[in-house]
Amino acid sequence: MTLAHETDQHRTTAPDPDEVFGAHRGGKLSTGLTAPLADARDLAIAYTPGVADVSRAIAADAALAARYTWAHRLVAVVSDGTAVLGLGDIGPRAALPVMEGKSALFKSFAGLDSIPLVLDTTDVDEIVETLVRLRPTFGAVNLEDVSAPRCFELERRLIEALDCPVMHDDQHGTAIVLLAALRGACAVQRRPLDSLRIVISGAGAAGVACTRILRAAGASDVVLLDSRGIVDAGRGGVKAELAAVTNPRGLTGGIADALDGADVFVGLSSATLPEELLATMAGDGMVFALSNPDPEVHPVVARRHAAIVATGRSDFPNQINNVLAFPGVFRGALDAHARRITDRMKLAAAEAIVDVVADELAPDRIVPGPFDPRVAPAVASAVARATEAG
Amino acid sequence: MTLAHETDQHRTTAPDPDEVFGAHRGGKLSTGLTAPLADARDLAIAYTPGVADVSRAIAADAALAARYTWAHRLVAVVSDGTAVLGLGDIGPRAALPVMEGKSALFKSFAGLDSIPLVLDTTDVDEIVETLVRLRPTFGAVNLEDVSAPRCFELERRLIEALDCPVMHDDQHGTAIVLLAALRGACAVQRRPLDSLRIVISGAGAAGVACTRILRAAGASDVVLLDSRGIVDAGRGGVKAELAAVTNPRGLTGGIADALDGADVFVGLSSATLPEELLATMAGDGMVFALSNPDPEVHPVVARRHAAIVATGRSDFPNQINNVLAFPGVFRGALDAHARRITDRMKLAAAEAIVDVVADELAPDRIVPGPFDPRVAPAVASAVARATEAG
Repeated sequence: MTLAHETDQHRTTAPDPDEVFGAHRGGKLSTGLTAPLADARDLAIAYTPGVADVSRAIAADAALAARYTWAHRLVAVVSDGTAVLGLGDIGPRAALPVMEGKSALFKSFAGLDSIPLVLDTTDVDEIVETLVRLRPTFGAVNLEDVSAPRCFELERRLIEALDCPVMHDDQHGTAIVLLAALRGACAVQRRPLDSLRIVISGAGAAGVACTRILRAAGASDVVLLDSRGIVDAGRGGVKAELAAVTNPRGLTGGIADALDGADVFVGLSSATLPEELLATMAGDGMVFALSNPDPEVHPVVARRHAAIVATGRSDFPNQINNVLAFPGVFRGALDAHARRITDRMKLAAAEAIVDVVADELAPDRIVPGPFDPRVAPAVASAVARATEAG
Repeated sequence: MTLAHETDQHRTTAPDPDEVFGAHRGGKLSTGLTAPLADARDLAIAYTPGVADVSRAIAADAALAARYTWAHRLVAVVSDGTAVLGLGDIGPRAALPVMEGKSALFKSFAGLDSIPLVLDTTDVDEIVETLVRLRPTFGAVNLEDVSAPRCFELERRLIEALDCPVMHDDQHGTAIVLLAALRGACAVQRRPLDSLRIVISGAGAAGVACTRILRAAGASDVVLLDSRGIVDAGRGGVKAELAAVTNPRGLTGGIADALDGADVFVGLSSATLPEELLATMAGDGMVFALSNPDPEVHPVVARRHAAIVATGRSDFPNQINNVLAFPGVFRGALDAHARRITDRMKLAAAEAIVDVVADELAPDRIVPGPFDPRVAPAVASAVARATEAG
């Protein structure tokens, strides 16, 4: 799971620990049958001898597995437990309750079956190898809570190795929802995205993906910061690639240099943003303070200096939550038998999210609420169309 | 799945192919939630922020994973698709409908959650390695439809490598049910097991396991045959081990030599048994013709020469079906937090099966019917007691 939805109910409804542990007794998932097995006739149809006809048909034509097994509609939620919530590298066993929750969300929000696969290895080669061997078992992979920078290589290699949708939600789920929120804010303010000076603080999984999707969506002036300051051409690896497509005005320095006159702040690190820096932003600014459990700046403080404020919190307007994206994205990709989740599909998902509230847009309503039942079907449908178009 | 339950409904209720394929559309399994996720409060309990407390607790004490995740009650049905039904090596995709059916049986008969894991490798090292990496994902492994002799090494190595119950059902499920049936037959005839001359035809997965369980249960005169005839000390590998504990009278030759004067015939190969050989068995004989789809001898023919006849078929008395064993065995092992499935547990399972019909025993009722609702709870309870005693 991502920063963006990590502790969104943290303040208002922090639940009682006894209730939480009680609700987790025995885990949160179950398996069920699509039809009962009540008598010999049911058994003859679903198991032997009937099932032999189905197995024989798939043996003759492997493509039929997509029609006659659950694999093609099954999302594997895969984690090695290296970056779980704000808890860090707590291992696969401790990660499992989160993955069960994620599987539960797939079911609740998009009707998708889903199983957690938690791996007792953090070696990228071994994770790829394991999922390649398990390939006939599932229809898509939602990578979750894998630490950066390993997550970038792991996702890239899985996409190469598997002929099915693979998405690291901590990257792209966050990016899709951020883009939706930014488009909503732009619509409210009647400003084009490519006119904005955008500052992204935090170059982990979410920050990198947000940078990429904003560039893909047409943002022309994005400045990315990590713990060392503004990312520039002197960096290595993935950051060198990002430096090449960001910071068009060649800024140097830190957050103060970046924010001066900026239109948009996107917080994806745990660093606090001092109010006096916020005050240096341009008028009509937008603040997306997405860190959890504590936003970079309290929304009440942010509102003093910005026209539009969004956080991960459910007790303030404009909650940014990945659940707006991933259920519909996977549903649409699986419905359309997509082999990849492309940029086109992600952009379509962002657009579909904000379109749901197109007629309701306001400074305190730039995205739908997380339980808006219109969202997942709209996203699924847009992603499926984008698959076919792409 | 095993010979014993492969096509048990083959003759009476062979279902219409259109109905079979219709019932398999989209697969036979689904995942569900143990509690709804309807609003922000549910989300706060089952997901964030509540779940962080549970993850933190497991990170501090890994043993808590058994209490707060579904893994400890989840059976992985694992196959490489090398020996599926009577269809042979048809691969993991074509095996998946069978594994979904098996998972459905775990749920229907023992209330156990279960997921199929079908593997795109037939290499024993790789299968072991894959399941070791996935260990935090599940609570037990039901190996299914893995070809002999690989299945022996694979099961042995998985038992060594994993600290959870592992059982190859094609071996031990069949063996448990056969032993139950033989005990039922002995009770009907008031004969002790150790007085019987037993011939087992077929030294594949099921034949080897049946030989071992009968010896462990006290059978003193077991003669095992494979395609080369009576297994003797001249054989290699697993068969040399079996030769050392079978054939106490030092017989040589083939099935005719073995059957002459024998009390029990156990058929676990596809070889036909000629009626004239059956006629050479001792009086009050027992015939367990378990091959599928065609028993080694038709039960009507067998009845001419034997006092008790059992097959895998549902349209004749004494149907021998693995479903009498595996759901309760895994349920009991998981309930008792067993780390192994021991011989003691298997013997207890066999006894529990026949005990269910202790007051109803008759030549045409040596085991309960496959849908007898008393069986799985009785087996589970006996296996759990045997775990704790062992």
